[in-house]
Amino acid sequence: MNTLYHYPLSPFSRKVRLCLGEKKIEVALVEERYWENDPDFLRRNPAGKVPVLKMDGRTMADSVAICEYLEETNPTPALLPKGAGARCEVRRLVGWFDDKFYQEVTTKLTGERVYRKIMGTGYPDSTNVKAGAKAIKYHLDYMARLLDERRWLAGNEMTMADFAAAAQLSCLDYTSDVDWNRHEVLKDWYAKIKSRPAFRSILADEVPGFQPAAHYADLDF
Amino acid sequence: MNTLYHYPLSPFSRKVRLCLGEKKIEVALVEERYWENDPDFLRRNPAGKVPVLKMDGRTMADSVAICEYLEETNPTPALLPKGAGARCEVRRLVGWFDDKFYQEVTTKLTGERVYRKIMGTGYPDSTNVKAGAKAIKYHLDYMARLLDERRWLAGNEMTMADFAAAAQLSCLDYTSDVDWNRHEVLKDWYAKIKSRPAFRSILADEVPGFQPAAHYADLDF
Repeated sequence: MNTLYHYPLSPFSRKVRLCLGEKKIEVALVEERYWENDPDFLRRNPAGKVPVLKMDGRTMADSVAICEYLEETNPTPALLPKGAGARCEVRRLVGWFDDKFYQEVTTKLTGERVYRKIMGTGYPDSTNVKAGAKAIKYHLDYMARLLDERRWLAGNEMTMADFAAAAQLSCLDYTSDVDWNRHEVLKDWYAKIKSRPAFRSILADEVPGFQPAAHYADLDF
Repeated sequence: MNTLYHYPLSPFSRKVRLCLGEKKIEVALVEERYWENDPDFLRRNPAGKVPVLKMDGRTMADSVAICEYLEETNPTPALLPKGAGARCEVRRLVGWFDDKFYQEVTTKLTGERVYRKIMGTGYPDSTNVKAGAKAIKYHLDYMARLLDERRWLAGNEMTMADFAAAAQLSCLDYTSDVDWNRHEVLKDWYAKIKSRPAFRSILADEVPGFQPAAHYADLDF
């Protein structure tokens, strides 16, 4: 059986879960409190981060590396388009959400509000929370600009870029940190992603001590 | 003519320059002070970061996306191996250096010592410098462990992973922040990379106000 070591509110784990789900690859989910630096887990991934995927006799780490592996070994349905230029655009946006969005928004909101408590690293830093709340507006506006011209974020097909974005946003939505009324086109996009079977397990996630927002699992939010 | 918008001590720009050089793709280098948020540059890359590559009539951003594009469109010499598992290992290590090493080491040493002055964001934070100087030891040890078992970082062929690592280390070496005597196997690896023609332009880089270390461009360091 394939195993994914993950944490429910880890956007990178969620991105991989969405790719696995879309490609109908079954995995057993093992929750990993990766910040506790368990020696067994560090053997699986010396970087000490989730997700880690055990599949095909391999132990694989890094969400980008895992998603590319899944695409190469299970090409249907495709989550990368055919042409090199279009693939470059998908990967640019994956980088955008994995790196820029994550650093500017997710660590500052989900990181401060949820992870600090779980990891026991103190109270939320209000400067960070404010910065995250400000930055998310810019990011939502940028996404809406893309979606004004394209059906999905990177083009007219759903790709890994949509999953990279939805993975981050779904973590923020858990704590009601996304203003879905800001752009209708963005809300429509998220509703489409949210209704995919691959999304179901993410909507069922619960982190002890943090109730998800009332609309979190609602497909008609 | 292809154009690469870069900054000399940007490790991500250096990674792309190494891939371009190895594949013998000529580019005009345009130095971009990306933190000044020039509107023309932001049109090229809304993320406001280097590198940005203009090539084949496209404007491409994000170093991972660019390197994958170069590999797909100019497959010789290969910088990714053939098998999906081996490719996954290369990409895991690219992620390691682009993300973990960069955050834990490069931003804390090159970031504090050089970028703060260039960007005008104050004096180096000594806590960060100390943390970076401590973290680099762990990373060098990890690299040496890999190189004890493999000719190159990700396996027995030189790949993007070696360039991702050398790009970070070469920035740190500019300010003498790498202890090459810590592991002979690592010094040998860097000497091999450093002597490649693709590395030449990197060894010629100069940042005004910061003299490179005496051994920086020396192939026999």
